[in-house]
Amino acid sequence: MNLKEYIKDRCAIIDTALDRFLPPEDELPASLHSAMRYSIFAGGKRIRPVLLLAACDAVGGDHEAAMPAACAMEMIHTYSLIHDDLPAMDDDDFRRGRPTNHKVYGEAVAILAGDALLTEAFVLLSNPEYLKIDAAKMLAVIREIAFCAGSHGMVGGQVVDMESEGKSDIDLATVQYIHTHKTGALMKAAVKAGAILGGASDEELAALTRYGEAIGLAFQIADDILDIEGTTEEIGKDAGSDQARGKATYPAVIGLTSAKSRATELVEMALTSLEMFNNNADPLREIARYIVARKS
Amino acid sequence: MNLKEYIKDRCAIIDTALDRFLPPEDELPASLHSAMRYSIFAGGKRIRPVLLLAACDAVGGDHEAAMPAACAMEMIHTYSLIHDDLPAMDDDDFRRGRPTNHKVYGEAVAILAGDALLTEAFVLLSNPEYLKIDAAKMLAVIREIAFCAGSHGMVGGQVVDMESEGKSDIDLATVQYIHTHKTGALMKAAVKAGAILGGASDEELAALTRYGEAIGLAFQIADDILDIEGTTEEIGKDAGSDQARGKATYPAVIGLTSAKSRATELVEMALTSLEMFNNNADPLREIARYIVARKS
Repeated sequence: MNLKEYIKDRCAIIDTALDRFLPPEDELPASLHSAMRYSIFAGGKRIRPVLLLAACDAVGGDHEAAMPAACAMEMIHTYSLIHDDLPAMDDDDFRRGRPTNHKVYGEAVAILAGDALLTEAFVLLSNPEYLKIDAAKMLAVIREIAFCAGSHGMVGGQVVDMESEGKSDIDLATVQYIHTHKTGALMKAAVKAGAILGGASDEELAALTRYGEAIGLAFQIADDILDIEGTTEEIGKDAGSDQARGKATYPAVIGLTSAKSRATELVEMALTSLEMFNNNADPLREIARYIVARKS
Repeated sequence: MNLKEYIKDRCAIIDTALDRFLPPEDELPASLHSAMRYSIFAGGKRIRPVLLLAACDAVGGDHEAAMPAACAMEMIHTYSLIHDDLPAMDDDDFRRGRPTNHKVYGEAVAILAGDALLTEAFVLLSNPEYLKIDAAKMLAVIREIAFCAGSHGMVGGQVVDMESEGKSDIDLATVQYIHTHKTGALMKAAVKAGAILGGASDEELAALTRYGEAIGLAFQIADDILDIEGTTEEIGKDAGSDQARGKATYPAVIGLTSAKSRATELVEMALTSLEMFNNNADPLREIARYIVARKS
């Protein structure tokens, strides 16, 4: 399979769905809905929704059941980027070459656009119109996503990441906590949600959970490596910015070579966890390989 | 019945439940969990959870089924206060006489504590351990709460409120939009959620929805009036601050006397909507009367 083509196709479908699920720009309050859409359609790679749909495919599920959750994942991811970019947090003026949300809409609307995107994710996840599975299982999907997005997941990772910035004595356990929570949790949630929505058996769900955990961590280690080896043009932000900020990264703690081996090892683990699946899981396999091979 | 005693009793039960449902302060990341708890236990009146439980009582429901949702409402309300107080928003240093969240924990942690409280509400609402009603009905509760908290509810109201500040030509429709969305939506959601969790019939739910809408608006109009007539000591913030900020309020648009009549009228409407209920709905009746009679 051609992963590039696959991702391109999926992104188009996801973008159409996001446009359908988000409040229209001319609906009151227009500035808020415009700000929400600005960051959603800012050229994201849609990795979480693609993963969610691919996990659904792996167990032979139906996209129609999974698409609202796929879009909810992207809304949560986007809210986290809007808040991360705020002056009180990373204070970034640009993301993927475009002005960040607060640079365009002001800090107050940016904070509220983030809040609204996070909330809208749960409006979407609980919409009875889109419910194609058992309601109790849908509650499990909501809980998985909320748990992985909250203080024991993404937000928790962000706090520890911030608190570790500039400290010279960060250990591997702390970096691993940051990576598995800040980035890994939501990727794992995407894979698990896709599996449940696709009708996974307990055994399939357990295997896909292992896959999700492995690629979530691999993705962030690969990001750390890209920050060192990528060019500013390739990665769309200043190369070397992690080091300049004193960020807790794998290469900083265990060295670049060990970080690379760890990423490769995790991809191998991810592939091994997919052994029970047929070629419906090929997209997941390709995504795992792509995560460490990508240049942006 | 003695409403003061009733509310005091309920607040004690709600506080115990909040303490149980929130992540412990010594759990990682400690600063985040500490910040979440700081604002939750900052002397709030617990109006939304009290309303939720009272609506559950009105239909003869069981508190055990309703308590997680009651606490989720307070988490959402508290997150909105933390974000409202931020320098980029209302820039308030004190709330109820205590330093605001960002004054104690810094802006970054305050933003994230708000995010985490909002997310934790959905972790709680989707917890299978606390599920005492049909899962499809629980999804309806989640949807009601999320919808009323998001861009078509509380967050939407907050945006229009901000955008109207200092404008001299605000009309009644805009003030009504702000009040019914910024404050009213979450109070209506509390009443509806309590009714559904308590096992309300369609007819009961419709009546309680009318009640929730009426008291939600009455509450905010009463707040506007208090800002003019209350003392700084009574209301716990600077009296007259709405006017000083050029806030869109009922008294500013229709005058103090008309605003008072409107509040009284809404309380009458709320009481009328409860006619089909027996004395199990007395707490809801007393709360409606209290909303316009209160001094803080």
